[in-house]
Parts: sequence; C-alpha cells; structure tokens
Amino acid sequence: MWAATVFTLYPEMFPGPLGLSMAGTALERRTWSLETKNIREHGLGRHRAVDDTPAGGGPGMVLRADVLAASVDATLDPSDPRPRLLMSPRGAPLTQKMVRALSERTGVVIVCGRFEGVDERVIAGRGLEEVSIGDYVLSGGEMAALTLLDACVRLLPGVMGKGESGVDESFENDLLEYPHYTRPRDWEGRKIPDVLMSGDHARIARWRREQAEKLTRERRPDLWRKLEEP
Amino acid sequence: MWAATVFTLYPEMFPGPLGLSMAGTALERRTWSLETKNIREHGLGRHRAVDDTPAGGGPGMVLRADVLAASVDATLDPSDPRPRLLMSPRGAPLTQKMVRALSERTGVVIVCGRFEGVDERVIAGRGLEEVSIGDYVLSGGEMAALTLLDACVRLLPGVMGKGESGVDESFENDLLEYPHYTRPRDWEGRKIPDVLMSGDHARIARWRREQAEKLTRERRPDLWRKLEEP
Repeated sequence: MWAATVFTLYPEMFPGPLGLSMAGTALERRTWSLETKNIREHGLGRHRAVDDTPAGGGPGMVLRADVLAASVDATLDPSDPRPRLLMSPRGAPLTQKMVRALSERTGVVIVCGRFEGVDERVIAGRGLEEVSIGDYVLSGGEMAALTLLDACVRLLPGVMGKGESGVDESFENDLLEYPHYTRPRDWEGRKIPDVLMSGDHARIARWRREQAEKLTRERRPDLWRKLEEP
Repeated sequence: MWAATVFTLYPEMFPGPLGLSMAGTALERRTWSLETKNIREHGLGRHRAVDDTPAGGGPGMVLRADVLAASVDATLDPSDPRPRLLMSPRGAPLTQKMVRALSERTGVVIVCGRFEGVDERVIAGRGLEEVSIGDYVLSGGEMAALTLLDACVRLLPGVMGKGESGVDESFENDLLEYPHYTRPRDWEGRKIPDVLMSGDHARIARWRREQAEKLTRERRPDLWRKLEEP
C-alpha cells in the first residue's frame, strides 16, 4: 500500500476531491492510504500558536520551525524511507517524471505551508525537499498536496482501467498529446480528419506523432528545445 | 461578485477544499460565487453517455463535442464576457500574471476534461482556451480547476488580511521569495541571520533582494533568463 502522510493546519481538506472518482475508489480498496497530521496539535501555549512575525519585519506570519519539527518528530520514524516534500512556490517544478518516480516509492510525506512561509531552518533541519506545482501562489500548500497526490495515485498499479494505460498521454514521451476526436463524424460542419477514419494504423500513428510534435513546437518551445538537446 | 462556473462530471468535488479557510470565508461572504454544471445532464440516451471511443483507435475514451457543447449552450448566455478555460495539460502554463489578470475580470468559466481527452472540435467550436497548471497529468480537470480558483480567489479585494498583501511573494516581482525566519532566534543551533536582527531596514531589504535573486538564479535559471531579456 502506497502511504501518504500530510502535515497541515487544515486536515479537513483531505481527502476532499481525492475521496471521489479514481483516487477515491483506490483509497477504499486500500491501494493507497492517507494520514493527516494537524500541525496545531504541537502549537504553543493555551492558543496552540503555530506562527509568529517574520524576523526583520514585513507582512504576514511565518510557520515556526520548532512547532513543525515537533509535529514531524512525533509522527515519523527516523528510518521512514519516504521522501519528505514541502509544497512551496520556491521549490523544484513538479514534472510527470517526478510524479512517476514518487509513485514508484513506498509513499510520500508532504508538509503544507501556510501564511507568508515556513521558517527556513526547518527545511534543512528536517530534510524537507521543496516542490512547486507551478509558477503561481496558492493560499496554502494543501491544494498543491492534493494535486500532487492525484497525479501520483492514478499511476499506482490497478488504479487506471486497462483502457487508459497512461502511455500515450502528455509528457510521457516529452510531447504534448495529439488531438482527440470521437463521434459524431460531422459536428456543426467540423469533420473528423480523414486520416483517422482510414483504418490505416501506421498512417494514423504517424499523423498523431506529427500533430503532437507540431503542438509541442508551437505551444511549448521550452519543452521542444529540451527534446532537441543532445 | 466574482463568479465562477465549472462544467464537470464530478460536481460533488466542489467547493471541496475551497469551502474552507480563506476561500471558504470569501465564498460565505459572497466575495465570489461558485456554480457547477454536471455535463452528464446533457448525456445521450438512457445511460446519459458523455464519451465515446477515439476516432482512429487507441486507449481510453473521449468526451463528446456535442454533449459538452449542449451543456455550455444551456448554461451560458452568448454575451457572457467571462473567459472560458479548458483545464488541459496541453494548455498554456498558468502563471501568477495570468492569475492576477483573471482575478481582475468578472469571473471565469472552467471546463474540466476527463478520460483520454475532449473532442478537439469543441475547443474552437465554443471558444475554449486551454490552460495547464503544470507539466504533469491529473485524473481530470477538477483538481486543476480548484487550484486555479484558489489562486484567483485569494487575490480578490478583501480576501487576504491586511498583513498579507501578496506584494512580497514569489513571482509578483518575477523572483522566488526570500527565506523567512521567526522565533526562536536559536533553534537546534541554527540561528536567524544577524542582518535580520539588526533593525536596519535598508540593509534588511537589500539582503532579502539578494537572497531572492540568488535563489532564483540557482533554482530557476529559466525564470532568471526571462528577467535578463531586454
């Protein structure tokens, strides 16, 4: 069983959308497990404070290193082999390759930041790896954690149906996916390309490859350049 | 009121995590609204089929153009000025700049794909704009829609507290954010950098800028190069 442990101030956000559809069925079947830990349980004082003002001034509040570390230490065995991720816009951009590698491990530990940020020292102090799901700012790491988990869980053995092997899709061959069509053949005067109705599988495969390459070149020159590098 | 309309096969995934925390409070206060439309209501036949096999063969199923168009046409006024987004890994990568622009409109319409993909013809046929939240594959567009909405909603007037203006954070100045520290001053032998305790605001601002630039150069040479372009 692929095991996810999530440190958060909003445990009630989980499993949320992951309790439904493919991920939800897999959760019920125990293909994966989801444990949440409320960081506030290790908050300080009567109000269980978890944050404080930033050293040097500035807006917002910073999640305290000692509180987060106490929560992590109380939950994880030091020998726990799972990668420890901190969802953060400063992190390494998540890619399908990283998702696939994570899905092949025994599971993942995810820390969700909130407020202005997390005290820098706990990142090195507890071996956290910063990961970003994209170049935008969220209200907290929770949505990023849900996104990362959704991407990983669908790749676990048995989660996708046989008909959807995940082989032909975007990024698996470093290309965007070719265009899809289905019935009706003529919709509002827009027709399915003839080649797809030809029954010639080699021609269809070639056309799809060309379309995928064209789309990638036009829309994502950054991805295309990486493909051309030696 | 900023109005979001979401077309999905899983309306029960919404508001999900957006019903809590900052976005949830803003939803209750009617700073924004969230309407979901179940695409299946316009499915075909007794089983309300929404998908069919891909023209030309291959794995998975494709969301039908006619079904999705019927759902859109029954819901949206043709003069609705909101951008119509299709969450898709083939789309333009979402950036904080796009998030800010969307948050300044009257709202957003989001179509969530599922299965292998959406019939290509409905994209042009209904003026959908493909947007991707990152270079990985999700089980459907729902998680991407939740992520995009979270990013937009936090920027709506009054959603963030005064202390968290969103000015100093990652991407707003095209740099990753500088490191944060808070009490205690010494944690497990790791100290808050002296400069932050100096009380010298100009020096602190300079140090933070340098740290942000250093982090961006080291971790995201792609962002750094864009900054250096004329």
